[in-house]
Amino acid sequence: MRVLLYRGDGQIGQWAEDLARALPGVETLGWQEGETLVPCDYALVWNPAPGLLSQLADVKAIFLMGAGVDAILKFGDALPAVPIVRLGDAGMAVQMAEYVAYATLRYFRRFDEYEEQARHGLWAPLPEYEKQAFTIGVMGLGKLGLRVAETMRGFGFPVRGWSRTPKEVPSVDCFAGMESLDAFLSGTRVLVSLLPLTLDTNNLLDRRRMSTLPKGAYLINVARGAQVAEPDLLALIRAGHIAGATLDVFRNEPLPAPHPFWDEPRITITPHISALTVRADAVRQIALKIAAFEAGYPVDDVVDRNLGY
Amino acid sequence: MRVLLYRGDGQIGQWAEDLARALPGVETLGWQEGETLVPCDYALVWNPAPGLLSQLADVKAIFLMGAGVDAILKFGDALPAVPIVRLGDAGMAVQMAEYVAYATLRYFRRFDEYEEQARHGLWAPLPEYEKQAFTIGVMGLGKLGLRVAETMRGFGFPVRGWSRTPKEVPSVDCFAGMESLDAFLSGTRVLVSLLPLTLDTNNLLDRRRMSTLPKGAYLINVARGAQVAEPDLLALIRAGHIAGATLDVFRNEPLPAPHPFWDEPRITITPHISALTVRADAVRQIALKIAAFEAGYPVDDVVDRNLGY
Repeated sequence: MRVLLYRGDGQIGQWAEDLARALPGVETLGWQEGETLVPCDYALVWNPAPGLLSQLADVKAIFLMGAGVDAILKFGDALPAVPIVRLGDAGMAVQMAEYVAYATLRYFRRFDEYEEQARHGLWAPLPEYEKQAFTIGVMGLGKLGLRVAETMRGFGFPVRGWSRTPKEVPSVDCFAGMESLDAFLSGTRVLVSLLPLTLDTNNLLDRRRMSTLPKGAYLINVARGAQVAEPDLLALIRAGHIAGATLDVFRNEPLPAPHPFWDEPRITITPHISALTVRADAVRQIALKIAAFEAGYPVDDVVDRNLGY
Repeated sequence: MRVLLYRGDGQIGQWAEDLARALPGVETLGWQEGETLVPCDYALVWNPAPGLLSQLADVKAIFLMGAGVDAILKFGDALPAVPIVRLGDAGMAVQMAEYVAYATLRYFRRFDEYEEQARHGLWAPLPEYEKQAFTIGVMGLGKLGLRVAETMRGFGFPVRGWSRTPKEVPSVDCFAGMESLDAFLSGTRVLVSLLPLTLDTNNLLDRRRMSTLPKGAYLINVARGAQVAEPDLLALIRAGHIAGATLDVFRNEPLPAPHPFWDEPRITITPHISALTVRADAVRQIALKIAAFEAGYPVDDVVDRNLGY
């Protein structure tokens, strides 16, 4: 069996080694711009070049080496008509739970304010926020969103969720569809986005929708920056309606040097590190899915191009 | 039934109201220095004055309005020979879990470094720490320690525990007694103290014992400041052996203004807020215990004066 590996960053050596261990007898190969590809059974890609995609019409499936699908679906009709399979969890869900727990607890327990006080040598306990009034609202109830919801329930926070199609999750108050988005937002104190980036979620959090959040709400974005209208977020923070934000993703990454987010102390910036693909987990998962394809079994996580995820 | 309420800070009004609701028909009264106490059935106290203690010889039990017992046991032989009952959880365990999760994730995910980078407008992902090498060591496996251990297991960290007497906790590697303390410390990356302050734990974490921790270890103290030899901790941090500490408790509180901890950026200081007694939970618990005493049933959390907790 022959498997192509390609990453926009060129870092395929370890992936090839891990895959050879997981699928004994596999032949892995790379590709460079301008080359003609020899026939392959499968392709593992991340940030693929257009010149590669046009040569993948005959593979049995294309596996993505990361969670997001927007970077490949943007090619639209130029994509070969073969199954595209996204990564399932691959160690990312627990990292997302860590990130969201950290950012939420920092705001809820006022640790950011205690840090500021300590810088000035000030010892002063602050009034506590009431947990029952601190509802966490999770947008996106896939594997990552469910794990985040479960973790925050474990700390005793009220949790609600919003998804495109109706879901039922124990102990989570579930909302679905655009028609219930305002109701969902109006009772959310900490809004967490784990949505995929699609035509529907681009600019989803604009000024009107973020104004629907109660005063003092906090935003955690670990999905895609383009879901948030950045100038609107800044305006709502400066107006005092939104208390602050912890952002791991931005419309343009790296976040450009002269961007007003850098200078807003109520915005915490991390450089897209909320959940890194754990290569070992990802390779194990892809190897199992290749085995399933070969045996003719159904495979999870095949991308629906109409839904965009 | 007549119940005395006394707090060193004088704030007994809400406690009296809550207790009257929880125990209909109860008569609550306060006390001031110099007064002679009328006979009472029970006493609820926090930071009691010596002049009060000597008048409590005939109550059926003394209930503490907080978790720590060191502030009352320090009176030693001056204490009346009646049962002293400490608070069980009273909403504190989940707060401890929040605090420890926050401080651990901040170090493990390098959020403190990302904050520093962001202050300089720097976008730079850092190498990740390996979770399997990030063992959380919890000292004290009572209700609070168990909740902390469970929460950190939920994030997938290896967890070990140390207690005075042997315990068995699922998925936690348990150590017991002074003779195993060095072995416990030598494999601990993040050390969390939830021990009571006793003669045995005073200065427990001295230079020799903290040197037993592996290089790069981190300390979280949410118990009592006197367990840590503060100059030793500072020296080990400055020497680079201990990476840093998040401290909620100190030998002297409030932490004095000219204390070197304030100026050490690797030490995060909070003003004894890791777990505040939730009055409503505490009153409910004490009311149930009073009912048990009245009915002659055994009562949990009676302090063992020899053990000191």
